[in-house]
Amino acid sequence: MKYQLFDFPLSANCYKVRLLLTQLEIPFERINVNLLQGETRVPEFLQKNPTGKVPVLEIEPGVFLSESGAILTYLAEGTEYFPSDRLTRTRVLQWLFFEQYSLSANLSRPRFYISVAKQPEKVAHLIDYWQNLGYQALDTMEQHLANHSFFVNDCYSIADIALYAYTHIANEGGYDMSKYSAIQSWCERVKAQPNYLAIAD
Amino acid sequence: MKYQLFDFPLSANCYKVRLLLTQLEIPFERINVNLLQGETRVPEFLQKNPTGKVPVLEIEPGVFLSESGAILTYLAEGTEYFPSDRLTRTRVLQWLFFEQYSLSANLSRPRFYISVAKQPEKVAHLIDYWQNLGYQALDTMEQHLANHSFFVNDCYSIADIALYAYTHIANEGGYDMSKYSAIQSWCERVKAQPNYLAIAD
Repeated sequence: MKYQLFDFPLSANCYKVRLLLTQLEIPFERINVNLLQGETRVPEFLQKNPTGKVPVLEIEPGVFLSESGAILTYLAEGTEYFPSDRLTRTRVLQWLFFEQYSLSANLSRPRFYISVAKQPEKVAHLIDYWQNLGYQALDTMEQHLANHSFFVNDCYSIADIALYAYTHIANEGGYDMSKYSAIQSWCERVKAQPNYLAIAD
Repeated sequence: MKYQLFDFPLSANCYKVRLLLTQLEIPFERINVNLLQGETRVPEFLQKNPTGKVPVLEIEPGVFLSESGAILTYLAEGTEYFPSDRLTRTRVLQWLFFEQYSLSANLSRPRFYISVAKQPEKVAHLIDYWQNLGYQALDTMEQHLANHSFFVNDCYSIADIALYAYTHIANEGGYDMSKYSAIQSWCERVKAQPNYLAIAD
């Protein structure tokens, strides 16, 4: 069977998986799951992923993968996007964990309330908290990219896919990206990769 | 050279690495880095890890690994703690990413302000936010452990080490763990593993 991607188009975690599948030329079907209408919280979906989150990738009937970082490693296994050398793999994983711990939620949560739900007043007490942490993470990325074309070994990998997903739309969460010139150049290099897919595609 | 662990004893992210190194019987030296005194923010430390966080593991002179999840995968490579089968590895990584995204900060940040810095009033506006997310993550773990002895394939792995680290001290962050009987039993099974090391050891 074709891979089935349980997908919310606005989620950049889902976008990571769509982008990699497209770049690997793996055919897949998208099944929209509307977060806003609670469709990840119904029993049928929770059987696929008990955390109630997208993306979920069904790779065989009844075999579901979750957590975008883990799905990326699964798909990229054996390809240039996730090299097999032990230390290089660890460097890729370092950035994947950094993305999930330090970057993702701090960029995605303000974006959700500001640009998707359009109710920033609901999280007025949290915006500073998220942005303080989010800017720290962006500073770390900017510093790294000042001397590197991509995150690991100067080669495009799933580390770039993971970090690019929320970073290139950080402005939608109220982030001022104008001072991050190295990040902006890197975003252009990601967009120039073969088989690039935009988040809105 | 012996592995050098740049370590803050109260950090459960550091504890994960100490526990696995001990269980694998890999000799290592601990170098204390005092977070509370800003020792992760000085230039000398930032050269080892630009994110300014512990743990950092020096595996060869000048080769530093960071991000606890990535360090665990590096160390456990080729051992029973991180099986090589592709789907099993992905399951382990799913839980490692879940731990970093959904669990760790929500348990560690209230613990820091309540039990370490003893200034809970500084984060009064954030406690509900953290605990709402933290209890969701604990609910997911409890549900999984109701039917499984360990997180992946009913075998103790680095997924258990990662999830155990902050969970077994969640009460220090104001979490009421009394309703989580499956988690409590699993904690006992982790403590019964060969070469177990307590966080305070």
